[in-house]
Amino acid sequence: MSTPIHDAAVRGFASDNYSGVHPEVLAALAAANGGHQVAYGEDDYTAQLAQVVKEHFGPTAEVFPVFNGTGANVTALQSMLPRWGAVICASTAHINVDENGAPERVGGMKLLSVDTPDGKLTPELIDKEAWGWGDEHRAQPLVVSITQCTELGTLYSLDELRAITSHAHERGMFVHLDGARISNAAAALGVGFKEMTTDTGIDVMSLGGTKNGLMFGEGIVVLNPAASTGLKFLRKMNMQLASKMRFISAQMVALFGTSLWLESASHANAMAARLRSAVDAIDGVEAVYPTQANAVFAQLPNVVADRLRERFRFYDWDRTAGQVRWMCSFDTTEADVDAFVAALREELAAAEATV
Amino acid sequence: MSTPIHDAAVRGFASDNYSGVHPEVLAALAAANGGHQVAYGEDDYTAQLAQVVKEHFGPTAEVFPVFNGTGANVTALQSMLPRWGAVICASTAHINVDENGAPERVGGMKLLSVDTPDGKLTPELIDKEAWGWGDEHRAQPLVVSITQCTELGTLYSLDELRAITSHAHERGMFVHLDGARISNAAAALGVGFKEMTTDTGIDVMSLGGTKNGLMFGEGIVVLNPAASTGLKFLRKMNMQLASKMRFISAQMVALFGTSLWLESASHANAMAARLRSAVDAIDGVEAVYPTQANAVFAQLPNVVADRLRERFRFYDWDRTAGQVRWMCSFDTTEADVDAFVAALREELAAAEATV
Amino acid sequence: MSTPIHDAAVRGFASDNYSGVHPEVLAALAAANGGHQVAYGEDDYTAQLAQVVKEHFGPTAEVFPVFNGTGANVTALQSMLPRWGAVICASTAHINVDENGAPERVGGMKLLSVDTPDGKLTPELIDKEAWGWGDEHRAQPLVVSITQCTELGTLYSLDELRAITSHAHERGMFVHLDGARISNAAAALGVGFKEMTTDTGIDVMSLGGTKNGLMFGEGIVVLNPAASTGLKFLRKMNMQLASKMRFISAQMVALFGTSLWLESASHANAMAARLRSAVDAIDGVEAVYPTQANAVFAQLPNVVADRLRERFRFYDWDRTAGQVRWMCSFDTTEADVDAFVAALREELAAAEATV
Amino acid sequence: MSTPIHDAAVRGFASDNYSGVHPEVLAALAAANGGHQVAYGEDDYTAQLAQVVKEHFGPTAEVFPVFNGTGANVTALQSMLPRWGAVICASTAHINVDENGAPERVGGMKLLSVDTPDGKLTPELIDKEAWGWGDEHRAQPLVVSITQCTELGTLYSLDELRAITSHAHERGMFVHLDGARISNAAAALGVGFKEMTTDTGIDVMSLGGTKNGLMFGEGIVVLNPAASTGLKFLRKMNMQLASKMRFISAQMVALFGTSLWLESASHANAMAARLRSAVDAIDGVEAVYPTQANAVFAQLPNVVADRLRERFRFYDWDRTAGQVRWMCSFDTTEADVDAFVAALREELAAAEATV
Repeated sequence: MSTPIHDAAVRGFASDNYSGVHPEVLAALAAANGGHQVAYGEDDYTAQLAQVVKEHFGPTAEVFPVFNGTGANVTALQSMLPRWGAVICASTAHINVDENGAPERVGGMKLLSVDTPDGKLTPELIDKEAWGWGDEHRAQPLVVSITQCTELGTLYSLDELRAITSHAHERGMFVHLDGARISNAAAALGVGFKEMTTDTGIDVMSLGGTKNGLMFGEGIVVLNPAASTGLKFLRKMNMQLASKMRFISAQMVALFGTSLWLESASHANAMAARLRSAVDAIDGVEAVYPTQANAVFAQLPNVVADRLRERFRFYDWDRTAGQVRWMCSFDTTEADVDAFVAALREELAAAEATV
Repeated sequence: MSTPIHDAAVRGFASDNYSGVHPEVLAALAAANGGHQVAYGEDDYTAQLAQVVKEHFGPTAEVFPVFNGTGANVTALQSMLPRWGAVICASTAHINVDENGAPERVGGMKLLSVDTPDGKLTPELIDKEAWGWGDEHRAQPLVVSITQCTELGTLYSLDELRAITSHAHERGMFVHLDGARISNAAAALGVGFKEMTTDTGIDVMSLGGTKNGLMFGEGIVVLNPAASTGLKFLRKMNMQLASKMRFISAQMVALFGTSLWLESASHANAMAARLRSAVDAIDGVEAVYPTQANAVFAQLPNVVADRLRERFRFYDWDRTAGQVRWMCSFDTTEADVDAFVAALREELAAAEATV
Repeated sequence: MSTPIHDAAVRGFASDNYSGVHPEVLAALAAANGGHQVAYGEDDYTAQLAQVVKEHFGPTAEVFPVFNGTGANVTALQSMLPRWGAVICASTAHINVDENGAPERVGGMKLLSVDTPDGKLTPELIDKEAWGWGDEHRAQPLVVSITQCTELGTLYSLDELRAITSHAHERGMFVHLDGARISNAAAALGVGFKEMTTDTGIDVMSLGGTKNGLMFGEGIVVLNPAASTGLKFLRKMNMQLASKMRFISAQMVALFGTSLWLESASHANAMAARLRSAVDAIDGVEAVYPTQANAVFAQLPNVVADRLRERFRFYDWDRTAGQVRWMCSFDTTEADVDAFVAALREELAAAEATV
Repeated sequence: MSTPIHDAAVRGFASDNYSGVHPEVLAALAAANGGHQVAYGEDDYTAQLAQVVKEHFGPTAEVFPVFNGTGANVTALQSMLPRWGAVICASTAHINVDENGAPERVGGMKLLSVDTPDGKLTPELIDKEAWGWGDEHRAQPLVVSITQCTELGTLYSLDELRAITSHAHERGMFVHLDGARISNAAAALGVGFKEMTTDTGIDVMSLGGTKNGLMFGEGIVVLNPAASTGLKFLRKMNMQLASKMRFISAQMVALFGTSLWLESASHANAMAARLRSAVDAIDGVEAVYPTQANAVFAQLPNVVADRLRERFRFYDWDRTAGQVRWMCSFDTTEADVDAFVAALREELAAAEATV
């Protein structure tokens, strides 16, 4: 029989995709097994997911399950753009820095990136690249893509979202939302998905699953049918069409068809808040950016970060600036946070002692 | 708790990806869960899979887990070709007919397809497109791609494979093998993977998992390191890099690190043989192509096929010619076959009666 | 001062792009020179060309000058297709065999090629690939591309064109015409451009210039505005937007704004007819395909072809079959043809003598 | 006979591609006409150009004539990069802002753009994006692309070029130079092409022709053979292979095989210097950026710019900042400059009067 070969006691703060699968999701996978189901999405679980998504996002919402976040983002954006289109995004956006050019290479789009103080676009920042329509020399800016919560762990308020979507729509641009951590955002803001997306004017979004306890699987959710064309075909040609799709859909049903998404995200957010409070009380380390969801960014000496990393895995964010990122997950415990904080204190003290 | 919403008693002969997950694979997924593992492939299960693949294919073999078969094929081929490359393949190849142009659109390659009598290329057939090297007007044929077993359920013998690889290599072309059903081929031929691939001169292959009882996940296996470049980067930019890769690798370890691959494939092949025998004994339906693995192709009146399909799902292969495809899977039972054969007899008789 | 470094007395039968520029076209280039004209198409000559094209093709026709034929074909087709589109074409089509995969690599489209006896598609041949709409696994056949005159020197009659366009339109497909040698076709059929294209239902075409005496420059002509989107942007991103566009347009005005196109094409056709008559009268060489425009295809021993080629340059068409292609151009003279025929006779005799 | 339909007396300061063709270039086109020359580059003029380029750039230099600057840049860069490559460039680079995403869409590359004060990269600026090699999530920065003279009319000194190339080479990156106005740069710096490019470590460059008096045609020049692969094939598949290539090559021979390139560029530079001097002496308008080649950038009230533009065409550079660009060309005369300056004075005075 199968036995684990890894040490399941190890946990860290590297990323919410270092964690595994929530037990309820694993149970849903088992329940969806057995017998034959039509491949490529004509199965009972995908039909059920379609209903679940409509309940969350409104009756016009349509979901296309895909394998991963990059696949969701690129395919969604491609469906929103003509071949000559461009996407305005924050320079820190995942599509710009973490997808090895998939939006450009696979999607054939140009990204017009804008520097931001906190990972968040504003109408003013959008206007830095929102111009030149009709000029064939310029890749045509026709979509604004934002991330909620952002790659810096910050949040757009509903008002900020509305300001962006109306600004974009007035200029003939659609708005895409990378919602890899949309559950954390909804939990933090205390609002429902529809309130935060459909009702604020988001047109198409990526609905994150993997970072909130799924094994694999994300959804492209079309909120405004006028904003997206051909997803059925694009998903296939972009190599994102799962044959045994029931196993993506069943996971998403387990997550979003119950309150699991909210519980897991709220928990991860709470663990980050706990960590942030602790960090704020420690000398020698300084939190940067507001901690609004499940990420804590902090500044500390690289030497301390490196020693701490030998005990708990995490990533440098900006080595030059001495900034690191600590992510909490659905399975992060209070004990994990406390142990990490204790280790942080020890390493800071050790570094102090050697000076 | 999760309960199935589908009828697990339903089975058909549509495709080996209509079936679910082998229980041992499901158990392996559960065993791999818990704790934190480094994302994107630096986990313990992917390391274990690397060893398993070397044991099967030889010490130079390197595996890159990906999400699905199209992803495996396109990414593998792209790694074997310069930007101006072309691939010679059978016109029935999956890459040519079932991937919505992903090889061309995502991979940027041209397919030079050749008609074949049985889905199998030969040196003579290859030569129909193997010419024009150095002529910049012609997409350069630098890879031959074959499928084992083919989309028509036929098999290349080891001698036939060797003839193709030496023919290709002499002309400066590498050979790619789409092994979506490689386990069925090895089982049918009674040979090991290394004997059939590395030792016959295959350079790079797609190692199929989903069609042999995995939930999702295929592998690109590089047998000849000189034939492939940049897979690490290509996999990411092609949106085929799983964050929680341990769950692909654990499945493949469960399949290929044991004899499960062989048992499941042998069983599916045996069920197809059982079905073929029965078909051969029935008037009014005629098997086409040799049944060498887990597929049976047959010719029968469309009206009969349509009535039969209401009882057991399967696909038309060539509606004009009245040809259908019946696939067996790891979970097809003798009772399934017998019930299907009985239904076939009934529908043939019913059609006869109405004439 | 500039002096020629080449031997202008040399002529051959290799291709109509081996010839230079018609003197009237050269004069037009000189006349268009001097002063400043707005770049990228807002110049007086491009405006004039727009009128000339409307006079030829009808009031809805719109022209987009580009650099070369591959650029015209790929850009035109891309404007007719969504990202998931495919093009049905003859397997001998220039887009399929002579453009190094530009339609696939730059255009992102799939070509569904069909073997033909004479380079010409028919409704029946189109139907070999015209199926599978709505099936996301299949690249969607949404355009039929034909070449007039074909790469084999044959011609579609107006009836044949109408049969193709109505067949395509009934199935939701547009029709593209590669008109690299459209002038030769019109001259041979004795019809006007509008009669042959707009009136037969062609949607978008490539209007050839270079092979009929221009220095460089082709036009994409949209006949059915509903069939094409975004050419303005596509031309630029496909690197086909000439900054000093006046010099393409002035050439095309010189060619199509007068009867020069007809005189040059008729002359080339006549020279091919003269050559064909001579070949038909010679033993040991056999013309293949009808000679309907400016190309003669012939079968003769390779050894004779090779000796003849040392005196007059031309291309093998199918070395295995001993087929060669002889092209006539606007500047081919009767003396050229006669000298070539004499040489052919001599080489055949010499070969005969050595047997 | 051909007669001009445009007013050749009109001149402006919009762009060096608004001007026409230098008379010597036109003469060279006529001289290259007549007879048959092998198409696609095997002609006598292309062979001569190969020698001319070697004389300018050194014996290893190899030239590939193409149609236009975007074609030269994208094809050159593609030849320098694997499929997963990225290019570090100034955010003002032509490839980033004026090519409608052709580098991304056709070339499949990602641009990593960096803001600069004056259009010039430095080692420090390059380092903002020169990191992350080996990380598959990041598009791999493997080429630095600079423009000489820059889009802002500024120049790199030889020392600055050497600093960039050694910085890049030490990090495993090649250096591409967009030389659309390389003649103006060489004239301004008073150095030869080899001294400025090959000898400073440039690997591959685009050799500009159109903006210095050609009708059309640019060259890709490979200085370091180890830095570029497959240009022969890439040029074709990128739709940049001219069939009647002799007419590109003959123009480039006329330009670079004589001192014409230097005379024309020096003249354009001198006209810009004359304009700059005049502007510096006028109140109400302020020159911005150093005027080092043939461009003058200036700041003045938009209302004045708009009135002036009705008399002489030119472009806004940054409407928000009230910045405009005035380009001089090979055919700009002292009288043109003086008339323009007079008009500028008049419009400034008129605007002053209305306040």
